[in-house]
Amino acid sequence: MSRRPNEIRPVKIKRNFTNKTAGSVLYQSGETVVLCTASIDEKVPPWMEESGKGWITAEYNMLPGSTSPRKRRDRNKVDGRTTEIQRLIGRSFRAVADLEALGPRQITVDCDVLQADGGTRTASITGGMIALVDALISVKKTLPDPKKFPLRDTVAAISVGIVDGVPVSDLDYPMDFAAAVDMNVIMTGKGQFVEIQGTGEEATFSEKELASLIKLAKGSIKELVQLQAKAIGKRWPF
Amino acid sequence: MSRRPNEIRPVKIKRNFTNKTAGSVLYQSGETVVLCTASIDEKVPPWMEESGKGWITAEYNMLPGSTSPRKRRDRNKVDGRTTEIQRLIGRSFRAVADLEALGPRQITVDCDVLQADGGTRTASITGGMIALVDALISVKKTLPDPKKFPLRDTVAAISVGIVDGVPVSDLDYPMDFAAAVDMNVIMTGKGQFVEIQGTGEEATFSEKELASLIKLAKGSIKELVQLQAKAIGKRWPF
Amino acid sequence: MSRRPNEIRPVKIKRNFTNKTAGSVLYQSGETVVLCTASIDEKVPPWMEESGKGWITAEYNMLPGSTSPRKRRDRNKVDGRTTEIQRLIGRSFRAVADLEALGPRQITVDCDVLQADGGTRTASITGGMIALVDALISVKKTLPDPKKFPLRDTVAAISVGIVDGVPVSDLDYPMDFAAAVDMNVIMTGKGQFVEIQGTGEEATFSEKELASLIKLAKGSIKELVQLQAKAIGKRWPF
Amino acid sequence: MSRRPNEIRPVKIKRNFTNKTAGSVLYQSGETVVLCTASIDEKVPPWMEESGKGWITAEYNMLPGSTSPRKRRDRNKVDGRTTEIQRLIGRSFRAVADLEALGPRQITVDCDVLQADGGTRTASITGGMIALVDALISVKKTLPDPKKFPLRDTVAAISVGIVDGVPVSDLDYPMDFAAAVDMNVIMTGKGQFVEIQGTGEEATFSEKELASLIKLAKGSIKELVQLQAKAIGKRWPF
Amino acid sequence: MSRRPNEIRPVKIKRNFTNKTAGSVLYQSGETVVLCTASIDEKVPPWMEESGKGWITAEYNMLPGSTSPRKRRDRNKVDGRTTEIQRLIGRSFRAVADLEALGPRQITVDCDVLQADGGTRTASITGGMIALVDALISVKKTLPDPKKFPLRDTVAAISVGIVDGVPVSDLDYPMDFAAAVDMNVIMTGKGQFVEIQGTGEEATFSEKELASLIKLAKGSIKELVQLQAKAIGKRWPF
Amino acid sequence: MSRRPNEIRPVKIKRNFTNKTAGSVLYQSGETVVLCTASIDEKVPPWMEESGKGWITAEYNMLPGSTSPRKRRDRNKVDGRTTEIQRLIGRSFRAVADLEALGPRQITVDCDVLQADGGTRTASITGGMIALVDALISVKKTLPDPKKFPLRDTVAAISVGIVDGVPVSDLDYPMDFAAAVDMNVIMTGKGQFVEIQGTGEEATFSEKELASLIKLAKGSIKELVQLQAKAIGKRWPF
Repeated sequence: MSRRPNEIRPVKIKRNFTNKTAGSVLYQSGETVVLCTASIDEKVPPWMEESGKGWITAEYNMLPGSTSPRKRRDRNKVDGRTTEIQRLIGRSFRAVADLEALGPRQITVDCDVLQADGGTRTASITGGMIALVDALISVKKTLPDPKKFPLRDTVAAISVGIVDGVPVSDLDYPMDFAAAVDMNVIMTGKGQFVEIQGTGEEATFSEKELASLIKLAKGSIKELVQLQAKAIGKRWPF
Repeated sequence: MSRRPNEIRPVKIKRNFTNKTAGSVLYQSGETVVLCTASIDEKVPPWMEESGKGWITAEYNMLPGSTSPRKRRDRNKVDGRTTEIQRLIGRSFRAVADLEALGPRQITVDCDVLQADGGTRTASITGGMIALVDALISVKKTLPDPKKFPLRDTVAAISVGIVDGVPVSDLDYPMDFAAAVDMNVIMTGKGQFVEIQGTGEEATFSEKELASLIKLAKGSIKELVQLQAKAIGKRWPF
Repeated sequence: MSRRPNEIRPVKIKRNFTNKTAGSVLYQSGETVVLCTASIDEKVPPWMEESGKGWITAEYNMLPGSTSPRKRRDRNKVDGRTTEIQRLIGRSFRAVADLEALGPRQITVDCDVLQADGGTRTASITGGMIALVDALISVKKTLPDPKKFPLRDTVAAISVGIVDGVPVSDLDYPMDFAAAVDMNVIMTGKGQFVEIQGTGEEATFSEKELASLIKLAKGSIKELVQLQAKAIGKRWPF
Repeated sequence: MSRRPNEIRPVKIKRNFTNKTAGSVLYQSGETVVLCTASIDEKVPPWMEESGKGWITAEYNMLPGSTSPRKRRDRNKVDGRTTEIQRLIGRSFRAVADLEALGPRQITVDCDVLQADGGTRTASITGGMIALVDALISVKKTLPDPKKFPLRDTVAAISVGIVDGVPVSDLDYPMDFAAAVDMNVIMTGKGQFVEIQGTGEEATFSEKELASLIKLAKGSIKELVQLQAKAIGKRWPF
Repeated sequence: MSRRPNEIRPVKIKRNFTNKTAGSVLYQSGETVVLCTASIDEKVPPWMEESGKGWITAEYNMLPGSTSPRKRRDRNKVDGRTTEIQRLIGRSFRAVADLEALGPRQITVDCDVLQADGGTRTASITGGMIALVDALISVKKTLPDPKKFPLRDTVAAISVGIVDGVPVSDLDYPMDFAAAVDMNVIMTGKGQFVEIQGTGEEATFSEKELASLIKLAKGSIKELVQLQAKAIGKRWPF
Repeated sequence: MSRRPNEIRPVKIKRNFTNKTAGSVLYQSGETVVLCTASIDEKVPPWMEESGKGWITAEYNMLPGSTSPRKRRDRNKVDGRTTEIQRLIGRSFRAVADLEALGPRQITVDCDVLQADGGTRTASITGGMIALVDALISVKKTLPDPKKFPLRDTVAAISVGIVDGVPVSDLDYPMDFAAAVDMNVIMTGKGQFVEIQGTGEEATFSEKELASLIKLAKGSIKELVQLQAKAIGKRWPF
C-alpha cells in the first residue's frame, strides 16, 4: 500500500454532471465513482402529509458494470445490503436537516455507483451531501422562510478498519476485503457524530482499537469536509 | 421511570420451550418476549459446499400480535428493517463461531418476537445465543472433532441511549421512542466488541456521550452474560 | 396408539398469554401449540366501508421452528395450503358472527403455530375462538348495541380420519400421515355444522364411513365446546 | 327457476376441441363453458424423480371475459380461491389414478373457464376427466405395462346447496349466490366419495340437511358419469 | 407448402362465442385460434380521469394447452414477449379510435390464444377489432354524441417474411421458424400504415426485400379487411 | 428548431469511461447521455450450454435522475417499455454477430441512461456497439479461432419521425413528444436493415411518408457509422 494509514484517497468532485435534476454531482474517491443526483418532488409521502414538514430520502444502487464480475440488477427485489445502505444515507442527511424549514416537499438523493472500489456508501454520503446542498439552494426562494436554510451543518463519512493489525483510513476494496474490523463513521462539519457502525465480521475488537479507529475517522472526515466546502466554492449556505 | 439508568429489565430464560428443534428458548426481557429456535440442517448453502465449513444464520420476525396496532405480516417482501436486524443477529453469532469446527451443516436461529417492548434485536441475540448453544451441544458427538466446540465465546447485546440528556441502558419502547441517540452494542463474554451501531436519528452526539454509552453497555452486557451462563446451568461448553 | 379412537388429546388453554392485543390465547392440544391473538382495528376493509358492518378475518402461519425439518418462511408468496387454511378459519368465525352488531371495525385473529403435531387448523379455530371472544368482550361497551353481542354461538373443530381401517378422532401428525381418509369438521356449540371437508387423498370412502366419521366428530366437538366454556370461566357472553 | 331441484343443467362435451395437446375437451354445463386440455410431459417434478412414479396435476383459471364485470388476470400472484380450486381438481384425479402404472411422466390438466355461470370447479373436474382419459389413451402403448391402465375409475363432481330452504342440485351463479349452504361433492363411477366440501358461508346446517344434500349429489353424479361414458363413445378404458 | 406465397390461410370468424362481454369473437386463421373478448368498464384509469376521454387497451395471453410442449402460465410475472404484444395490440386499436367520442369509459380487449400456429399477434388484432366494434355498438346510445362513432376506420394485421429467399405472406409456425426476416404489418381499412415491425433476428435484409414484403402485406390486409366487413354483416358503423 | 431536418445532434464518444468491464463507453448525443458497459462472463445461459456457441445480450435502464420529474426505479418488476427496448438492443447486436466464433461465453451490454433527451434506445445501440467491440477485442486471443472476429459488421440506429408534417431525423424529447409518427431504424455498416419499427401512436402514415423516413434514416446512420469508426480509431476489427 502506497498510502499512509491516515491518508485518504484523492477526491474529485464534479458538480452539475447532468442537468435534469436540481443537484448532480460526480464524486470520485480513488477508483470509486458515484453519480449523486438530488431530485425535488413538490409532494411528500402520504404519511407526512399532515405534518407540514418536508422529507429527505436516499436510494443507493450499484450499476452492473461497476464491478467485475458484473453485478446483477436488483429487478425483482432489493437485496438486504442495498436497503441497509440507502437507509443509512437518508438518515445521515436527515440528522442535520431541518425538515420544517424545508416545507412540504421531498428531496430524493440517488446514489448510483458507476465504479466500485470500496467505500461506496461513504462516498455516497460525502458526495450526495453536495448534490443535496445544490438542490436546496435551487429552492431557496420558495422555502417557508428563505432566510432559514434547511440544513444546520454538512455531513461527511469515511470507512476505517484494522488491516494486518494496523488501523487505517479510507479502505479501498482490497483493504476492505483484508480488514478484520471495518467501521463506517459519519460526522458533521462541527465534529459531532451522526452514526457509527463498527463490525468485526469474523472477528472482534478491543476498546483500545475502537478508540484508535474513531481518532482516524475524525481526522479524515475533517479533510473531507474541507474538500466539500471547496467544491461548493463559497461559504456553506447554512 | 422506576429503573436506575444502569439497571436492566428483569430477564427470564426458558429453555426447551418447544421440542421440534435442537434449541428452543423463550427469552423475556421485561415486556419483550422472543421465541428463539435453532434448527440444524445437515446441508450448507450452495456457495459454501466446497469449503467444508458450516454456516450459522438467523431470521428475525415480529408476529402480528406482538404490537398494537397489529403489525402486518411480511408476506410479499421483507421490509428493510427486518433484513438489517437478521443480518446483524447472524453476524454476531458468526463472530464467535468456528465454522470449520462445525463441519458441513447449517444452523438457523429463528427469532420470532411474540411481544415487543423495545430491544427486540438485542433480546434476539442474547436469547438466540442460548438456543444456538443447545443446538451445538446436540450435535457435539458428530462434530469433525468432538473436543473442539464450534464456539469460542458467547455474545450478548444491549441497547443504550440518551433520554432527556441522560445515558440509560436497556431501552424499552417508550424510552427508545424518546431517545435522542440510540446505540446497540454487542460484546463477547470476554468483553471484546462484536458490533457497535450508534445512531442519532434526528440528532447528533459528542465524543463524550459516545464514551458514556459504551461504558453503560459494557456493564449491562456483563450482567447478561452471567444470566446466560446461569441458564445454561453448567460451565459454558467452550 | 394409547388413546381410544374417540378420545381427544389433552387440551390446555392459557388466556392473556401476551398483552398487546385484545385477545391472546396459547392453545395446546397434545404436542400442537398455537398462539392465537385477536387484534382490533377501528377501520374496515375498503370494500366494506359503505355497509356499516364489521369484519372478522384470520391469518395462519407456521413458525419455522414448529416442525422438523425447519419450515421455510413464506416471505415472497403465501403457499396454497396456508391460504386455504386461513380462509377456512375466517369463514368459521363469520358463520356464527353478527357483523352488523360488531359495528364498523375489523378483528383479525392471528394463529401462529409454535409447535406442529397435526390438527393445527382445527386447533387454530378452537383456540382462536376464545381469543375472539376476549376481543369482543373488550369492545362490548362501544358496540352499536352493547346488549347485542356480535356472536350467536361458539365454534370448535376437530380432525377425524380412517387409520388402518378404523375411524379415529383428533389425528396427530403420525396418524394424519397414515390416514386413508381425513376429514375436518367444524360445528357450533348447538351442534349445527359450519363446514365439513373430507378428503381421500389417494383413496376414496364409502357412505357408511362418512357416517361414522361424522358421528365421531360430533362427540369430540362437544367435549371441546365444554373446554372452551370452562376456559372462559363464566357463561358465554352470547 | 325452471329446473326441478334434482335436475342438472344440459351438458355438452366436445372432444378434440383443439389439437396441440393429447386431450382437449370443451365442456359446457348450461352457461358454464370450460376448456380442459391435458398435456403430457415426459418428465416428473424433481421431488418425484426417485420414485419412478408419474404425477397428475391441474391448473384452473378464469379468463377475463368469462365474467361481467371483467375478471382481472392473476399475473403477479394467484389468488387464494384459484389455488384452492386447482388443488382440489388435481387431488380428485389422483384419487382414482395409479401413478405407478403411469410411469415417470407428468400430466397437467388445464381448466380454463371461457364463460362462468356457477359450478366452474365441478365442471372442470367432470370435463377435465375426459381430457385426462384421452391423454392416457394416447400414451397407452408406452405405459410400463400397456395392459394396466393408470386409472381405476372415473370421477365426476356436482355442486349442491340449500336455496330458499330447498335442497337443489347443480347450482348456477344466481342460485349459488342465493344459497345458504353450498356443498361440492366429488364421487367415483362406482359411487365412492372422493371429496366432500360443505360450507355454510354465513350460515350453518343441520345433520338432516347434510343427508339430503348428499343424496341429491349422488343422483346427479350418477347422471354425469353416464354422460362422460357416452362422450368417450366406447367402454371406459379401465 | 401448398399455399401460394401471397395466399392467406382460411379465416373463420364466429361472433358472440361467449355472452358475458359486450364483444366476443372466436377468430381462426388456419390452425391459429384466438378468443377475443371486449369488456366495458364505465371508469377510466386514474391518470385519464381529468381528460374526459375514454381508453382502449388490450391484454394478450397464450393458454397452456395452446402449444406443444405446454406453455407455463405467467402467474408471477408477465414475460417480455407478452408485454410487447399486448402493447402493440392496444396501440393499433387506439390509432383509429376517437377517445373523446368514446366518453369516459375503458374497453379492454382480451386476446386469449386457444391454439397457436404462428401469427397469434396479428390474429389478435384482426379478430379483436371485431370484438371491439361489437362492444362499441353496444354502447352506441350512451356515447357523448351517438352519431359520432368512436372509430374512424378498422385495422387488420398480417405477418410476412422471407422463407428460403422467397417473400411469403401469413407465416404459420413452421414458416415463422424458418424465416430469415419476419415483419408484422398493421394497416387501416383505407390502406394507411399503423405500425410496421420488421426484424431480421439472426439476419439482415435489403431495401428491395423490404419493399416486396410491404407489397405482400398490403395485399393480404386488403383481403382481411373484406373478411372483417363480411363478418360484421352490414356496413362498418363508422 | 435550429437543426436541419436531416441533421443529427452532436455526438461525443468516450471510451474506457470506467475500468471494471472489458468495454465502457460514455455515449452522448446532444443532451442524451448513456453509459454502455460490456461485461464478459465465461459461462453461457443454461439453455445454450450444449450448443458450444456464445451469447450476446443487453440490459437497458434509466437512472432516476436522468429525467425530470425523477423516474422511479424498477425494483419490483421491469416495466414493459424497458423490456421491449433491451430485447431490441440485444437482437440488434446478435444480427451481426457470429456466436459460434465467440465461443462459449456471454457478453452483457448494459446501457444505463444517465440523462435522457429522446433517442435513448438508439443511442444505446450505437454506443453499446463500441463497448461490445472493445470487449470482443479484449478476448481476441482466447477466441476459438483468433483470426475469426465474432462480428461481421457494425450496427447503428437512429430515430426518425414526422413532426408538424415534416420528416426529421434524430428526434430529441420535445420532437418525439410532438411527432405524429415515430420510427426507429437499425442498420449495419454496409447498409442492410436489421430492424425497423414504425409507429403512429395516435395516427397513421402513408406509404410515401414511410419511404421518406427510411431515406432520412439511411443518411443519418451512415454518419453514425463513420463516427463509430473514428472512435475505434483504427480499422474495424472485422
